[in-house]
Amino acid sequence: MSTTVEDLNAIVEAAQAAFDKARAASPGTRAAWLESIADALEADAPGLVDIAVRETHLAVPRLQGELRRSTFQLRLFADEIRRGEHLDATIDHADDAWGMGPRPDIRRVNVPLGVVGVFGASNFPFAFSVIGGDSASALAAGCAVVHKAHDGHLELAARTADVVVAALDAAGAPTGLFALVTGRPAAEALVDHRLVKAIGFTGSTTGGRALFDRAAARPEPIPFYGELGGINAVFVTENAWNDRRDDILAGFAQSFTLGMGQFCTKPGLLFLPAGHAEEVAATLRELLEGFEPSRLLSERLHEGYRHAVGRLQENPAVDVLVEGDFAPTPSPTVLHTTADVVRRNPELLGQEMFGPASIIVEYRHESELVPLAQLLEGQLTTTVQAEPADDVAELTGRLADISGRVLWNGWPTGVTVTYAQHHGGPYPATTSGTTSVGTAAIRRFLRPVAYQSFPRSRLPEPLQDANPWGIAQRVDGSWIRSVRTGK
Amino acid sequence: MSTTVEDLNAIVEAAQAAFDKARAASPGTRAAWLESIADALEADAPGLVDIAVRETHLAVPRLQGELRRSTFQLRLFADEIRRGEHLDATIDHADDAWGMGPRPDIRRVNVPLGVVGVFGASNFPFAFSVIGGDSASALAAGCAVVHKAHDGHLELAARTADVVVAALDAAGAPTGLFALVTGRPAAEALVDHRLVKAIGFTGSTTGGRALFDRAAARPEPIPFYGELGGINAVFVTENAWNDRRDDILAGFAQSFTLGMGQFCTKPGLLFLPAGHAEEVAATLRELLEGFEPSRLLSERLHEGYRHAVGRLQENPAVDVLVEGDFAPTPSPTVLHTTADVVRRNPELLGQEMFGPASIIVEYRHESELVPLAQLLEGQLTTTVQAEPADDVAELTGRLADISGRVLWNGWPTGVTVTYAQHHGGPYPATTSGTTSVGTAAIRRFLRPVAYQSFPRSRLPEPLQDANPWGIAQRVDGSWIRSVRTGK
Repeated sequence: MSTTVEDLNAIVEAAQAAFDKARAASPGTRAAWLESIADALEADAPGLVDIAVRETHLAVPRLQGELRRSTFQLRLFADEIRRGEHLDATIDHADDAWGMGPRPDIRRVNVPLGVVGVFGASNFPFAFSVIGGDSASALAAGCAVVHKAHDGHLELAARTADVVVAALDAAGAPTGLFALVTGRPAAEALVDHRLVKAIGFTGSTTGGRALFDRAAARPEPIPFYGELGGINAVFVTENAWNDRRDDILAGFAQSFTLGMGQFCTKPGLLFLPAGHAEEVAATLRELLEGFEPSRLLSERLHEGYRHAVGRLQENPAVDVLVEGDFAPTPSPTVLHTTADVVRRNPELLGQEMFGPASIIVEYRHESELVPLAQLLEGQLTTTVQAEPADDVAELTGRLADISGRVLWNGWPTGVTVTYAQHHGGPYPATTSGTTSVGTAAIRRFLRPVAYQSFPRSRLPEPLQDANPWGIAQRVDGSWIRSVRTGK
Repeated sequence: MSTTVEDLNAIVEAAQAAFDKARAASPGTRAAWLESIADALEADAPGLVDIAVRETHLAVPRLQGELRRSTFQLRLFADEIRRGEHLDATIDHADDAWGMGPRPDIRRVNVPLGVVGVFGASNFPFAFSVIGGDSASALAAGCAVVHKAHDGHLELAARTADVVVAALDAAGAPTGLFALVTGRPAAEALVDHRLVKAIGFTGSTTGGRALFDRAAARPEPIPFYGELGGINAVFVTENAWNDRRDDILAGFAQSFTLGMGQFCTKPGLLFLPAGHAEEVAATLRELLEGFEPSRLLSERLHEGYRHAVGRLQENPAVDVLVEGDFAPTPSPTVLHTTADVVRRNPELLGQEMFGPASIIVEYRHESELVPLAQLLEGQLTTTVQAEPADDVAELTGRLADISGRVLWNGWPTGVTVTYAQHHGGPYPATTSGTTSVGTAAIRRFLRPVAYQSFPRSRLPEPLQDANPWGIAQRVDGSWIRSVRTGK
């Protein structure tokens, strides 16, 4: 049953009340809340994974790995906020000799935004859903979270939310700090609610853009952190092809079919030197022979997948290199065309196929690669397969311009959660310049406040000279790092 | 003569070409460009100030101070980018023992967005105009800037732009990295242009919101960093009033009339204990007796000012405490009402009067202050005037919720340029959570890119283990600060 708008309003108000209470928590206390959630998820792992298998058709090892990713993430974020990195504490003492004239004592710290609405994705029922990256980073920042469940795994969402709520309660967090809502009316009311101060979203370009527009049109516009997926183009140089064609095709075949191709980082576009179509077809057919397809996440996604592949095939200059199908458990499809064709039809480069399909584009000469890259829209990732002797500086420069992450001789599926990770990229990969993976994701849910000439005793802890939390502080321009060191 | 849309397009394309060339510059080279601009502005100061006096009616010392602020800012930003703080360079080496599974080598750095459009304000012809905070921070970030001149000082804008362009040229920066455009068609085309990747704006709520909506509605939405001004409420406790009433009224009188009240940080709202209206009126009249009014920035602002004050006076429960006028050089006006009235008419708290006017609101008991603060919209600043014994923790907490900067026993006019400064605040103070003053402003014009498994020799300098630029790097979770210290 869907959450009514009336219930949604009450839930958001309760979240605000919990946020107001939770603000006094030290980073250590808040970190313990995150760790309590991680522990509780692990304790309920078998039950959670069982439901997830049934609702998403994903395999057990994949789901177990994803749950491990989620609990690791909660603990990494707990570490990060204990260090206070996210606070960006900056202290400028009063200085009569300051170059533009005497400056007062002024100190800045990041504070949490308030109640955050999070929309889960269907394809990662743990890592980008109820207590995935957006929820974990918003809670780490000190926000309250109201999560809109994805219709694709409602039972799992409810059970996960129960685990999270109970774990927060057991750890002493204020009631209402995390809540689950379902259904479209509640989703729209969540984006509109005056107490909601930011949205985290993972999903389709169409759905994401509609909600982005809604968030921007509010009387008080709010940031909409939407991760809308992408194409993840891969460029193979002639040298790389000559030296490692078998490895490259094997890596490609594995990466574009991983999780039935239902990753936002699936390589959906592969640029290869021309003249090898038959050989590529034969090799890929062989590589994919043993592939055991499973069902896609939902009927709706299956229909969307069939439609997207069909749209590309409508172009008479696009042919089928490896013939797949659209059975309930679809076999992989590889399409094929040439650089000349995509130059005349650049829309071919922007068609995401959310399933086990990819398109190979043949180029005649490496000098075509930079102009081809210039036809691409914003991408979550791009990849270069190249050899030490290759001069690809211009190409990688162009790829950095349009990508959130650029890979060298790797494959884009697999997004590790670290300090340096950036899972984002120019529109339409995302609706913002931010990341939804890694510790940097926490910063999205904070905003700075400066305190001028405050008595020392009235300053928030992170801005006190005595530094009671032992965090990093930038003092008069120079960073003084805490005594805490990495893990 | 206004810039045609055709010319605007050519200027933006030239800016993009210059940006592409300028990207290879090291922070040191780019810093020297900023310093060259600062030197050139100083060399032409007398001429610039002459024009500014004529066009804006502001006084010579004020304009000289503002120019000094602008050159200081350019040099401070030069220092900041030499340190590489803005790059947020983060290096995670490959780690097979990483908790969620082996991680690849992954490194993140901030890169400039591209061409930035900057809209200047009328009230700071140097500090928030052609080469003010937005332009300086965008250039420091590595972006190209196309500046839309404010109609209020077109001659000054042209002369300033000439100085900037010549200084960049003399320092060896690519031609086109900075350009000036004028007129509304070019302004709109600038926000719409596909090569423009962010907008910096200082101005009115109405104008800013219209352009924000335009930026959000683009096929590729772009960040719109709008500083739209505000009310800057000041709260005086009973103890502070009893102990320092004369100082407080003197500070208030000076602050709300500074620059003829044409500051976005003007205290437009003063909460005082009830029962002293006549005394306050008498003291303020005395304090303002010697005040020498000058002309407002423009006829249009003068009309807007008269209209805004008139709107507040329409309410029969608002009376005039100090009678000013709306002569060409208007004398200050102080309005007066009570907490009861504003509770019933909260719109009285959101009416900016851009000129030498403010409104005093009497409260009966200090317990009213938090609920009154809850009626306020987002503010650039809020101020508490209090004594050591006062328990104002809840009030300052609430003020931090709605403000970019909270002051203790000070006055909000005067915004120093430092590392910790935050000149921003929740909507409608700004359209984003960011600052338009201080070194943190540079980050607005950057976005992160991650490099995965890149050969060491192909990594950008800030991400190389050898750290050729000597900047701060976060390595495997811990910051390693450069050998450069302070300035």
